[in-house]
Amino acid sequence: MSAPTPLLIDGLQCGPYDRTVFEQLRAGGVTCATATIAFWEDAVESMDALVRWHDLIDANSDLVVQATTAADIEQARADGRTAILLGAQNASPLQSRLGFVRLFHNMGLRVMQLTYNNNNEFGGSCYEETDPGLGRFGREIVTEMNAVGILVDLSHCGERTRREAIEHATLPVAVTHANPRSLYDHPRNVGDDTLRALAERGGVLGLATYHSISGKYAATLDDWCRMVTETVELMGVDHVAIGTDLSPKAGPAEFDWMRRGRWTRAEQRGADLGAGAPPEVTGPTEWLADASGLAAVAGHLTARFGFAPEEAEAVTGGNWLRLYRTVFAGT
Amino acid sequence: MSAPTPLLIDGLQCGPYDRTVFEQLRAGGVTCATATIAFWEDAVESMDALVRWHDLIDANSDLVVQATTAADIEQARADGRTAILLGAQNASPLQSRLGFVRLFHNMGLRVMQLTYNNNNEFGGSCYEETDPGLGRFGREIVTEMNAVGILVDLSHCGERTRREAIEHATLPVAVTHANPRSLYDHPRNVGDDTLRALAERGGVLGLATYHSISGKYAATLDDWCRMVTETVELMGVDHVAIGTDLSPKAGPAEFDWMRRGRWTRAEQRGADLGAGAPPEVTGPTEWLADASGLAAVAGHLTARFGFAPEEAEAVTGGNWLRLYRTVFAGT
Repeated sequence: MSAPTPLLIDGLQCGPYDRTVFEQLRAGGVTCATATIAFWEDAVESMDALVRWHDLIDANSDLVVQATTAADIEQARADGRTAILLGAQNASPLQSRLGFVRLFHNMGLRVMQLTYNNNNEFGGSCYEETDPGLGRFGREIVTEMNAVGILVDLSHCGERTRREAIEHATLPVAVTHANPRSLYDHPRNVGDDTLRALAERGGVLGLATYHSISGKYAATLDDWCRMVTETVELMGVDHVAIGTDLSPKAGPAEFDWMRRGRWTRAEQRGADLGAGAPPEVTGPTEWLADASGLAAVAGHLTARFGFAPEEAEAVTGGNWLRLYRTVFAGT
Repeated sequence: MSAPTPLLIDGLQCGPYDRTVFEQLRAGGVTCATATIAFWEDAVESMDALVRWHDLIDANSDLVVQATTAADIEQARADGRTAILLGAQNASPLQSRLGFVRLFHNMGLRVMQLTYNNNNEFGGSCYEETDPGLGRFGREIVTEMNAVGILVDLSHCGERTRREAIEHATLPVAVTHANPRSLYDHPRNVGDDTLRALAERGGVLGLATYHSISGKYAATLDDWCRMVTETVELMGVDHVAIGTDLSPKAGPAEFDWMRRGRWTRAEQRGADLGAGAPPEVTGPTEWLADASGLAAVAGHLTARFGFAPEEAEAVTGGNWLRLYRTVFAGT
C-alpha cells in the first residue's frame, strides 16, 4: 500500500465545475475542496444546485466524491479521489427559516457564510456602510449551525458581525477565504484583533489567493507563501489554512451574478474596488490559475520559509481537517 | 342622490378577516382600510395570501371591494362599500429580488413596510440593538417602490432607517401605524425630528390605537383624540391620520406568527415589552374593540377638541387619500 498523498484542503472555491476542473484538483493533489453552491440563491434554488452537484459527482466518480464528515475526507484521500464539501456563501438557502438549518444539513451542506455582500436578516456585510452586528435571527442560526454541525463562515461578514459570531458560537468558526487587513487593507480582509479572537476559540482563517484582496501577495507563489508566514506569526500555525476563492471557469455571467445578484441594476465591481483601490492590486493570479498549482505550496513553505513538514501540512490541510472534525460533530 | 359618508380611512389593520369584520368596517363607516397580507411571508406565500383576499372579497362584494387607486377608494365610498387596500408589513414578499417590486405592484399590492421586527437585507428594525440604516438594497427598493407606485411604510423600522428612507425617497412616505415617542416612549414609536422630516416631505403618520404603544392614550376615545390633538400640534393637521393596527379576530396562533415567525423558538412578546414596560400600559383597547368604534372619531374631534370639520376629515381620511393619490401615481 502506497503512502497517502500529503493532506491538502482548499477551504473555499467557486464554480462552475466540470471534469476539467476536477482534473485540475487531482493534478494539484487536492484532498478536499469546499465548493460554493449559493451566493444569493434561496431554498429551492439551492436544492437545485445540490441536485446538479449530485449529478456532476456521479458522472465523475473516478475523480471526486462528496464528503459530509472528516472520515469521508480521509477515505477519499486513501482512495485517490478529491472530496467535495458543499457550502454556501450566504445564508440565503435558509430563506429566513431557522428550521431550514437542519434540513440543509440533512441534504449535505456543511459550510455556510452568514452574509454575502449585503447586510441581511442575520448580520452585517463587509461591503455595507454600517454593520449592525450579529442580529437576533443571526444568533439563532449560529446556535443552530453549531447544534447540527454546519461550519459558520464569516468571510464576507462585516467586522462587528465577525467578532460577535466568534463570541456567540460555542464551537470554533472560520473565515474560509480572506486575508489579514494588517497585511493588505481591504474591507473584505480581517482585523488582527478579530483574527486573534478567531484563533483563541480554535477557529481557522483560509488565506485567499484572489488578487483583489491579496495585492502584492498575489503575484507569485513566493509572495503568497510570505503572506502565509506573516499570518502564522499573527495567529499561530494551527489557525492558518488555504481558502483560494478559485473559480477558473467563471466568466462574466458568473461574476455578474455574484456581484449584482437580483438586488441592483447598477454596475458592481465586487472586491475590485476600482479607482480607489490600492496601487499594488495586480491582474489575475498567475501562479495559481487553477488548483493544479496548489501542489507546490507545502514544498515551498518547507524549502523557502523554514516550515517543518508537519507545520506545512497543518497549513495546507491539517487545520481544516481538525476544524471540520470538531464542527461537523455538532453540539 | 344622498351625501357621501364622511371620509374615514384606516391606514393599517391586520387579519384574520371574515364577513363579521367587514360588517364592523361598514358599521364604522370606514371608507377604506389597508389590510396586512404578509408579516414574514415570502413571494409565493404572499401570492397565496393575495388569492385568499380575492376569494374573500368576491364572496363579500356587497360589503367590500379591492382598491388599487385613489379613484377606486372614492368609487367605493360612493357605492357604500369599504375599499380594501392590500399591503405588507415586511418586504419579505420580494424574496430578495428588486424586480419583484413591480410584479407585486402588478398583483395589486400598494403598501410595503421595509422591515418588520428584525433587521433584513433592506434596513433596520426598531426591535434590534443596532439599526444599520437603509442599506444598499434598501435604497434600490425605495427607488423602485416610488417608481411603480407602492407606498413606503416605515412603521416597524428603526429610527435611522426611517430617517434615511424619508431622505432617499423622491415621493412622500408613511409611518402607517405608530405614535410619537415624545408622547409615549416605546421603540416602535417615532422621534419628533423624524416626524417633522416625514411631514416636511409630505408624509403621513397613522396613529395607532394598540395599547402597547399608546399607553395612557389608549384607554378611551377622549384619551386617543387627545393624542391626535397633540400630534397635530407637532406635525400639522395635514400629516396625521389613523392607523389602528386593529386585528379583532387575531388569536394566539396569529400573534405567535407575528412575533416568532420562523426565526426563533423562544418566547417573544412583540410590542408588549413585559416587566420593563412603562406602568401606564393598559389592557385591550376598550373604546375600539373593532372598527365600528371608528365612526365616533370625527365627531369627537370637532365637538371636544375644537377641530373644524375639514380638519377632522383630513385626519380621519383626507390625508391618507392625498398621500395614496400622490404615491400610487409613481414617478
